[in-house]
Amino acid sequence: MKIKELQKILQQKKIDAALFLNYSSDNSDPNFVYFTQKNLDFTFFIVPKSGRSYFIVPKMIYPELKNIKFKKILWNKKNDNLLKIMKKRHPVKTIAINKRYITLSLYKYLKKHLKRVEIKDISNECSKLRVLKTKKEILNYKKAARITDEIIQSLIKNIKKIKTEKEAIGYLKMQCWKRKCEVAFEPIIASGSNGAEPHHKATGKLKKGFCIIDFGIKYKHYRTDITRTIYNGKPSQNEIDDYNLVLLAQQKLIKSCKQGITCKKLYEDSLKLLKHRARYFTHGLGHGIGLEIHELPNIGPKSKEKLQPNMIFTIEPAIYLPNKYGIRIEDNILLTKRGPVTLTKTPKKLKIIS
Amino acid sequence: MKIKELQKILQQKKIDAALFLNYSSDNSDPNFVYFTQKNLDFTFFIVPKSGRSYFIVPKMIYPELKNIKFKKILWNKKNDNLLKIMKKRHPVKTIAINKRYITLSLYKYLKKHLKRVEIKDISNECSKLRVLKTKKEILNYKKAARITDEIIQSLIKNIKKIKTEKEAIGYLKMQCWKRKCEVAFEPIIASGSNGAEPHHKATGKLKKGFCIIDFGIKYKHYRTDITRTIYNGKPSQNEIDDYNLVLLAQQKLIKSCKQGITCKKLYEDSLKLLKHRARYFTHGLGHGIGLEIHELPNIGPKSKEKLQPNMIFTIEPAIYLPNKYGIRIEDNILLTKRGPVTLTKTPKKLKIIS
Repeated sequence: MKIKELQKILQQKKIDAALFLNYSSDNSDPNFVYFTQKNLDFTFFIVPKSGRSYFIVPKMIYPELKNIKFKKILWNKKNDNLLKIMKKRHPVKTIAINKRYITLSLYKYLKKHLKRVEIKDISNECSKLRVLKTKKEILNYKKAARITDEIIQSLIKNIKKIKTEKEAIGYLKMQCWKRKCEVAFEPIIASGSNGAEPHHKATGKLKKGFCIIDFGIKYKHYRTDITRTIYNGKPSQNEIDDYNLVLLAQQKLIKSCKQGITCKKLYEDSLKLLKHRARYFTHGLGHGIGLEIHELPNIGPKSKEKLQPNMIFTIEPAIYLPNKYGIRIEDNILLTKRGPVTLTKTPKKLKIIS
Repeated sequence: MKIKELQKILQQKKIDAALFLNYSSDNSDPNFVYFTQKNLDFTFFIVPKSGRSYFIVPKMIYPELKNIKFKKILWNKKNDNLLKIMKKRHPVKTIAINKRYITLSLYKYLKKHLKRVEIKDISNECSKLRVLKTKKEILNYKKAARITDEIIQSLIKNIKKIKTEKEAIGYLKMQCWKRKCEVAFEPIIASGSNGAEPHHKATGKLKKGFCIIDFGIKYKHYRTDITRTIYNGKPSQNEIDDYNLVLLAQQKLIKSCKQGITCKKLYEDSLKLLKHRARYFTHGLGHGIGLEIHELPNIGPKSKEKLQPNMIFTIEPAIYLPNKYGIRIEDNILLTKRGPVTLTKTPKKLKIIS
């Protein structure tokens, strides 16, 4: 995807090639996956500034690569000189890598192989390429959002039968399994006072009161991220007021998602909309989603981005009252030229389980 | 775990403190998890060369840390100077980090915070601490191996009802869910000619012939890794011979796992035992397991380690006949002073599904 765009960047920056090393498919480089649309173990992918891109693949992985549009080169005992392999095909004076993925140990390894090569970072440029989703990605996201809605609604419908936070997480995972996808991250189920911890790790029983369900799926490499807060028992008027405060804020914020608005402004608006509860809002308002669960744009106090059409991101205002409860409502928004489209459609009116 | 041992290393190496930054609980630093027995987002853990270790925790994560034996320091707008926080507590001239986890971007961030501090790598020392499992870890592993056996046996028992490789993976995941654990890595189900790809990604229907099932669980942060190869249909005499060749090799290799044997020797023995099929064995013979799926010792042609009591590792000889089939048999072995103990106990006699 967008290999030509990457090559343009390489030409502008006078870089001979970009080198992506997917060290493990369980901890993959999102840029490797983006450009190749594959997730492989121990494999290099090289994009020269012009000409054909190619994989360098160890024997063990080689058979996996069938019907691909890129060249594949076998990495074995006779052919394990990275610099030589590359030099045969294109100049190698300057190479770009993804510094957000390459660890210091991998870097040492690369440096040993790439003697006298200047190594530059291409991570920011890749993130910027990935921020505007293609038609194919948007179609994929619409499907992914539908599945996400189905699963979270199924949990909410069946939550009375579930006794612990961990069981609820298991239920979500099983629903993913049934739909041939998987969770995008370890789901958060935070009931009662646990809800005051934005990243609560599931502990014991599902407590009475508000219950935050924060969950997403990984569908064809792409990740969704939705949150609903339901109520188990009979809410007090204060609790209902708090819920509606967050809900109204979220709805207004989604409406303000227009081309050109700065993410910083959006975040500041969220503080105004959360009024007297704003000091209990302890994280950013949202983040881009894609191959990673946190991508550009970042919607927080230090954001520098502006919203643009074809961005897909979350809007998730929240409040966390220490030792009491938390309320978070999060949707996935696609910005189009005509305005925001909420991809996740699970109802947001306070759902009371009694 | 083993904080005192780490402090001894710091003293020997004249390093003032070790700093572990767990950037994300979905992609955690195994050393952070090892020493703290916790997996948190965006959290530092500092082990000074003497005295109490402490967390530095952002507001969002702070409430998660209850009943812990380490000090916790809040990281917020007023208190976000890493160097200052550390200097208050101990000298900070030399700091050690895990270079296998820290990316070049995170390193840049750390360097900005740690001006004029010498930064060293502690990754090898940590790996060596982790290679010898404690009593608690061994007990945990025995339980984990039992669950692993249960799940793989359940899949084998029910495989006739399953139509595709992906469904088989889903079945394994669901069985994990039922037992409140999760898969240690994306399971490999490689049937028929797909078995010739050691890291096959599930594609279509379960084909006739050999079927490799490679799977492990993550149980209280620790990972198991088992492989069985079953047969779907009626095997030819050649196929039976190949299977028994791998099985006999595996059994003999497990018996040779004794204190002091070099891993290189073990690997070389595997080539001898696989006889005329040795050239179809395209990966290492085994690897340590623990918080990571690949740890020390590495049992391959370039290994430098010797086996020692309290190591836990895999033994997994295999053959991969291009475009035909693959056979791999893998167990988790604990080495004790009295010899090897096979923790995974799923039967290995060729299971024929007809």
